Amino acid sequence: MLPDQQLLRIPGPTPIPPSVQRAMLHPMIGHRDQETKELLRKIKPKLKKVFETKEEIAILAGSGTAGLEAAVTNCTQPGDEVLVIVTGVFGERFAKICEAYQLNVHRIDVTWGKAVDTLDVENFLKGHPSIKAVFVTYCETSTGVLNPIQELSNIIHTNSDALFIVDGVSAVGGVQTKMDEWGLDLVVTGSQKALMLPPGLTFVAASKRAWEVIEKNNIPTFYLDLQKYRENILSDSTPFTPSISLLFGLNQVLDMFEKEGLENVYERHQLMKLMTREAFKAWNIPLLTRDSCASPTVTSVIPNDFNPDALRKTVKNDFNLVLAGGQQELKGKIFRIGHMGYCSPSDILQTISLIEIGLVKTGKNVMLGSGIAAAQKILTKEVK
Amino acid sequence: MLPDQQLLRIPGPTPIPPSVQRAMLHPMIGHRDQETKELLRKIKPKLKKVFETKEEIAILAGSGTAGLEAAVTNCTQPGDEVLVIVTGVFGERFAKICEAYQLNVHRIDVTWGKAVDTLDVENFLKGHPSIKAVFVTYCETSTGVLNPIQELSNIIHTNSDALFIVDGVSAVGGVQTKMDEWGLDLVVTGSQKALMLPPGLTFVAASKRAWEVIEKNNIPTFYLDLQKYRENILSDSTPFTPSISLLFGLNQVLDMFEKEGLENVYERHQLMKLMTREAFKAWNIPLLTRDSCASPTVTSVIPNDFNPDALRKTVKNDFNLVLAGGQQELKGKIFRIGHMGYCSPSDILQTISLIEIGLVKTGKNVMLGSGIAAAQKILTKEVK
Repeated sequence: MLPDQQLLRIPGPTPIPPSVQRAMLHPMIGHRDQETKELLRKIKPKLKKVFETKEEIAILAGSGTAGLEAAVTNCTQPGDEVLVIVTGVFGERFAKICEAYQLNVHRIDVTWGKAVDTLDVENFLKGHPSIKAVFVTYCETSTGVLNPIQELSNIIHTNSDALFIVDGVSAVGGVQTKMDEWGLDLVVTGSQKALMLPPGLTFVAASKRAWEVIEKNNIPTFYLDLQKYRENILSDSTPFTPSISLLFGLNQVLDMFEKEGLENVYERHQLMKLMTREAFKAWNIPLLTRDSCASPTVTSVIPNDFNPDALRKTVKNDFNLVLAGGQQELKGKIFRIGHMGYCSPSDILQTISLIEIGLVKTGKNVMLGSGIAAAQKILTKEVK
Repeated sequence: MLPDQQLLRIPGPTPIPPSVQRAMLHPMIGHRDQETKELLRKIKPKLKKVFETKEEIAILAGSGTAGLEAAVTNCTQPGDEVLVIVTGVFGERFAKICEAYQLNVHRIDVTWGKAVDTLDVENFLKGHPSIKAVFVTYCETSTGVLNPIQELSNIIHTNSDALFIVDGVSAVGGVQTKMDEWGLDLVVTGSQKALMLPPGLTFVAASKRAWEVIEKNNIPTFYLDLQKYRENILSDSTPFTPSISLLFGLNQVLDMFEKEGLENVYERHQLMKLMTREAFKAWNIPLLTRDSCASPTVTSVIPNDFNPDALRKTVKNDFNLVLAGGQQELKGKIFRIGHMGYCSPSDILQTISLIEIGLVKTGKNVMLGSGIAAAQKILTKEVK
């Protein structure tokens, strides 16, 4: 094993691109200096293109969960009836935050590994006209499911006045998110997923409708008060000391997106998903999710004849390839491969080659070259 | 002016040491990996030495204000009577957070530039036996005042059962903070001050007494719930994705502290304070604070015959030396020099030399070499 080489293929954090590392090495500057203002001024329009919104986006120092909590506290009041669509660990987290803030929480619980059935949401909303907000996870990182956000948005806005609040944490930047066109009211994401930065920034984009609700909201909050962030970002500033190094990195990430072209970024993620899935199909190892709801950023595998954690241990020991395990009820049952952010189809070929060796070593009867050939076929078709 | 050279002498963020920059370049790792656990395991005991506490310290991704808010929400309930000692912008911030959470806020307002008179606190507490918590700023960054924390702690604990909650943001790591010995119940700090890291981490250390109050507290909070951080840090983990790059940097900062010796770190800050103050005394330019309450980390100057912002502009334009202006009621009246974190007595000689030239250029009648000689005398005495 080459010392100092780690192949990080978990669903976030992802490896950091060298040019982003270099950008973050910028000497420290004052957070109230003109240079910080200029940095924010450069970031703003490029960031809006990623969310496909014309509205202002709050940039907070914090983990993604801080962004999810900001979504809850700024858009709801204690006692409000809300619907949380729970498709895994992060839907569960939304529900827990809503419960902590004493909302009247209704849940649609979906079997982990499946996307929500939009008909269930439609029927629920028809019977619950006073729902103030619907919370959903775009890409459920714990299962690799991509929920049908655009369709959900149509259904929610047709059948209710609820705000549609989306956890976009392992989606935005890797999966198209047409916030304004699709009518998403609030989209949250974090820095360490498809935005390929270290963890430490969270983003909250809100629609005109959402800002109206937020403006009227007066429940106690201070650090997560989105109005403060909006007022400040309008003049290229932040209410509290921002994570300056991460902002330098973010600006570089956004430049990389412009250079590659956002459409190409999304296609690259689609391609990596297909390559990964085809390999497991060739090996005849079950995937947790159907093709129709598989996320372009993370793939979950649910083996029926070997221990996923034994495989993870093997490839970690032999090649320093890091895969993620299952969480909570899926612990010990699945493993997850992250293919987002600073990750290319070539990296996926490497990942699959190593997993293939790991499978053989774990005693699984696969033929060397079989999974990788399936992935190569996809790639050959795409790049011809 | 040398391109790419900025002399950042504001009271935080401070320049980042090269070895800390290098540490933060560590390739990204998974936040649930063994390597992250090992990193936290290394950080914990060294961090406790800085706070001089045996209790666990919560490490949160966020600005210092997130830490201040965590102090308020975890230790109080709506309607609680609290006392906030307001000596400047950051005392005011504590008051605003307490008001946002509907506490019954009593204030002791101190003229900006002065430390609180401990007798006022004693008298207040004797007349208000139901005060649940007293909030104070250790170093008030907006004025350069160091409040008498140890004496305040004695008075508070002798005269009440209140928790003593300290904003240590531009003090901890630059000024001794004997948390356990002095009986401080909660100490908050941020990464970008004397800890010489980029902004993005905040720390909350709590005493046994404080943890007991926190455990019983059940007001709605999620991301800032200190109990979650305590439970996790006990097993070398964090409840939410930590700012991994900053943790690598923090570990290196703490190693630098061990190498220099914490006592020497504090002496260096004292020395830089003295050198700075003696220069201004030699120039006959008034300092905002008395010697007896001057912070070792930041010095405020209140000129009576020139415009502080004109001086700041001159040294910025000519030498890229960045000084801070006054905030709120002191805007346009003072300027502030940060001498903390990655800053040495040699750097202070440079800063003073440049300010001296700036003063001459601004039309102030000072003799070249006069201020710097005063600072040199202090340094010569110290290093002889």
